[in-house]
Amino acid sequence: MKLYSYFRSSASYRVRIALNLKNLPYEYVPIHLLRSGGEQLTPEYRQLNPDALVPTLVDGDAVLQQSLAIVEYLDETHPNPPLLPRSPIDRAYVRGLALQIACEIHPINNLRVLKYLKHGLKVEEEAKNAWYRHWIEAGFGTLEGRLASDARTGAFCFGDAPTLADVCLVPQVFNAQRFNIDTQRYPTIQRIYDHAMQFDAFKRASPGQQPDAE
Amino acid sequence: MKLYSYFRSSASYRVRIALNLKNLPYEYVPIHLLRSGGEQLTPEYRQLNPDALVPTLVDGDAVLQQSLAIVEYLDETHPNPPLLPRSPIDRAYVRGLALQIACEIHPINNLRVLKYLKHGLKVEEEAKNAWYRHWIEAGFGTLEGRLASDARTGAFCFGDAPTLADVCLVPQVFNAQRFNIDTQRYPTIQRIYDHAMQFDAFKRASPGQQPDAE
Repeated sequence: MKLYSYFRSSASYRVRIALNLKNLPYEYVPIHLLRSGGEQLTPEYRQLNPDALVPTLVDGDAVLQQSLAIVEYLDETHPNPPLLPRSPIDRAYVRGLALQIACEIHPINNLRVLKYLKHGLKVEEEAKNAWYRHWIEAGFGTLEGRLASDARTGAFCFGDAPTLADVCLVPQVFNAQRFNIDTQRYPTIQRIYDHAMQFDAFKRASPGQQPDAE
Repeated sequence: MKLYSYFRSSASYRVRIALNLKNLPYEYVPIHLLRSGGEQLTPEYRQLNPDALVPTLVDGDAVLQQSLAIVEYLDETHPNPPLLPRSPIDRAYVRGLALQIACEIHPINNLRVLKYLKHGLKVEEEAKNAWYRHWIEAGFGTLEGRLASDARTGAFCFGDAPTLADVCLVPQVFNAQRFNIDTQRYPTIQRIYDHAMQFDAFKRASPGQQPDAE
């Protein structure tokens, strides 16, 4: 398998974690989102990913986009260890946690959105950073409440083994810290993050460990 | 089952389509997002949905959030007719189409984001509308390209039966038209939308048909 990835992209980071949890070797192809006007915008890359987003996973003839679709694909084709629980209600709960991050926090702070704020709306740097923090804090606030109160929370978001929810949570915490958000204010999120980062699958997936890390 | 919904919410609209496609009766509980400062913000509703978003589906003891997690739950608990194809590659493709809408277009144009643009960043009405159109046009542009060129496209996004991708596409087209975007510029998207709207499951789910429609 080939993963087109950018070290700091949290959508790429999710897929790296899932590949590592499944013990799947892969070739890392760096796509630098900022260099030479954005390598994701080249016609060659757009053939693989018309939206000009990372990651893209190539598995044989299949060219797959969208990190959550890719992680579900890996879970279906390599079921062990599973990244979703067994019962439909619990699966919906775990997917709901993952989607809260993937839909309600992450896209609003994506690079192209921040670019539009800066160039399209002439938003100043400080207001742009406040925007970034606002959506993480809004999302982490309610996520912390759910994780702190739900009986299903364990060492990870759901029980004591990593799931799709942790695959999304860990990169989002990394992003928050990069933007100087004090994640200690979200003790359950912080505890799960610290726990996850003890495992090789999460450690090896982190931005600093990638071949294109700066 | 009980669906907490707002007639114009496209995330609610997705779940209504899925419930109808599965022929599942449900009780409709309107949550007005604009009236009395936003009914989604009441402590009672936040107990069901801490993020103060619609929809919420209550099925017995289960309280489920996030439209895509809910639709996958309905598909797992009521498998016929299926909303995802059988092969993992095709499932990833359909989920990828759905997520392109659910992650790359819809959240950036969500009510709370538009409110932040207006009140937090003092963005004028016309610039706010340009923002709205920008993300739909960026997303529909690439989506049209994929649907127009992929051999799997049929009367619906994937073959001739509705899937999770159509469940997301139809509400997004409705939104686009509400904001006066000429969707005829996306002929494949328009064709699929027109086809879907011939079916009772899609028609009955549309905003104008809901008890809280204005």
